[in-house]
Amino acid sequence: MKAVVFNDEKKLFLDKDYKKPIAQKGEALIKVSLAGICNTDFEITKGYMGYNGILGHEFVGVVEDVNDNDKSLIGKRVVAEISYGCDKPDCSWCAVKNYRHCPERKTLGIVNKDGCFAQYITMPVNVLFEVPDNVTDEQAVFVEPLAAACEITEQLHIQPIQKVLVLGDGKLGLTTALTLFAQGFDVTLVGKHQNKLDIAKNQGVNVKLLQDVDNNNLYDVVVEATGSVSGFETSLALVKPRGVLVLKSTIATGKELNLAPIVINEITVLGSRCGQFAPALRLLENHRIDFKPFISGIYDIDDAIEAFEANKSKETIKILIKF
Amino acid sequence: MKAVVFNDEKKLFLDKDYKKPIAQKGEALIKVSLAGICNTDFEITKGYMGYNGILGHEFVGVVEDVNDNDKSLIGKRVVAEISYGCDKPDCSWCAVKNYRHCPERKTLGIVNKDGCFAQYITMPVNVLFEVPDNVTDEQAVFVEPLAAACEITEQLHIQPIQKVLVLGDGKLGLTTALTLFAQGFDVTLVGKHQNKLDIAKNQGVNVKLLQDVDNNNLYDVVVEATGSVSGFETSLALVKPRGVLVLKSTIATGKELNLAPIVINEITVLGSRCGQFAPALRLLENHRIDFKPFISGIYDIDDAIEAFEANKSKETIKILIKF
Repeated sequence: MKAVVFNDEKKLFLDKDYKKPIAQKGEALIKVSLAGICNTDFEITKGYMGYNGILGHEFVGVVEDVNDNDKSLIGKRVVAEISYGCDKPDCSWCAVKNYRHCPERKTLGIVNKDGCFAQYITMPVNVLFEVPDNVTDEQAVFVEPLAAACEITEQLHIQPIQKVLVLGDGKLGLTTALTLFAQGFDVTLVGKHQNKLDIAKNQGVNVKLLQDVDNNNLYDVVVEATGSVSGFETSLALVKPRGVLVLKSTIATGKELNLAPIVINEITVLGSRCGQFAPALRLLENHRIDFKPFISGIYDIDDAIEAFEANKSKETIKILIKF
Repeated sequence: MKAVVFNDEKKLFLDKDYKKPIAQKGEALIKVSLAGICNTDFEITKGYMGYNGILGHEFVGVVEDVNDNDKSLIGKRVVAEISYGCDKPDCSWCAVKNYRHCPERKTLGIVNKDGCFAQYITMPVNVLFEVPDNVTDEQAVFVEPLAAACEITEQLHIQPIQKVLVLGDGKLGLTTALTLFAQGFDVTLVGKHQNKLDIAKNQGVNVKLLQDVDNNNLYDVVVEATGSVSGFETSLALVKPRGVLVLKSTIATGKELNLAPIVINEITVLGSRCGQFAPALRLLENHRIDFKPFISGIYDIDDAIEAFEANKSKETIKILIKF
């Protein structure tokens, strides 16, 4: 089958003859329909997580087979939570299905598990979710980053009266701002690109150019979604004393950071990663967010390397790969 | 009067003819009896906070006069919360007496207010606390760092079942471990110096040398009390996924930090600074912690510069200055 591979010689290429996976007991074989490129995929090609194998963790597909007695998922459109755990009886994380913290977890295209930039993947049935009929593939493929945005309110109680700022107008910041807005919060999205900000503005979100932000107007919650050290420092400067800075992206390392303001202003820095799919699918089913304006291009799997190149452009928001 | 001054030429010296302060309306004039040197004082002499003036914020003294109708505090032994605010009607911080976050706050010996390494100081009456009769000056002088340790449970709900690790066996780590132990928590103090660890061990705290810490045994809450980048990184490695890292000291800047584990493990980093005095005085009144073993030396105000030199020694825990 065709697959986008990042190999142990740090080379990214389209393998046209990758071995088709076989579903193990409890797993489904899924034919991938559409996949999305995430910045994490790009970071991996620069060495993040030391991962080698097929890239990709955002997809929607159709179940072709199930290696289990219950075959009812065959033919269904599905998405999959990207981590699954050891499921051993003494694992406190697997016991509550919080697979993303199981010490032995596998994560699609990130940790010890071939990813979804391939014609076929296998995933355990217990992390699959059926896509509602009224959600198109082009919307469903966004469920993983949408779930990651929903994770914020899984971890943090934001009061309806509080003011939230999301910093960064890339796909992460846009998704986060639209999600918090869909959840009813008083949210302002701040970025440097009016054309990107407009995607959120057109769906009702307050937006502001970074240059217009008033440093004396502080926020209860600031979500850092730029992934840059300067974004982290700006976030620290914009959060109220005793407020919360949600760290949504793995900050680029190799630069000096001054953490003293965290102590002086008694800030809470909350690391936030992946999320559960059920609340994200509910938002999609109710058409609370439209991801269509995110799509900068849809590339055929044969043009996957070109798709990765297109992803590097500052103008790009989301690049999809179709199979 | 005599005062220890850090001047705008970055020189630390004993001024034997500093102008005695005058209590303004609502303030008390206090004759300082005993004061403690904090690492923050030392950091200030290296440029922290850009402060110039009399150093010092840990003290116990006796009220000589009050510039107000109510003179009842005259002759009383007192301690003082170190920050006071604008007390304007529209200041949300002052309204709840959380003066340490008032944007116009003054902080004893740190922000726009002469400190306590002097024979006399003035402080607003509303931040003074009477010292209970059964608490000696040598114990009362520790109330400020003790209050800072009590701040942790003001900010964070630690469940009685949870495991807490305090990293660092300097005065900050020792005070924090003893405080959390006095509050009934399952706490382990980790450091590099058996003689310092023994101070906590002798009062019932579990202690461990850093070299004996098992990296697979993770904690719900880790308190970083080393002030070093390596301490921060060790703390991150010892906290459970979704656990809390309490940042109790302003980390030395100028080194690279990798914040990715905060996101990957969804850690909460909680900045924690000063605390309220009432709970700290209650612990002292009930003799729940004995600070006597902390005292490495008591210097006369005339030998204050020598006291600062002694504070630099790795063997030193707490240096006091008497008047």
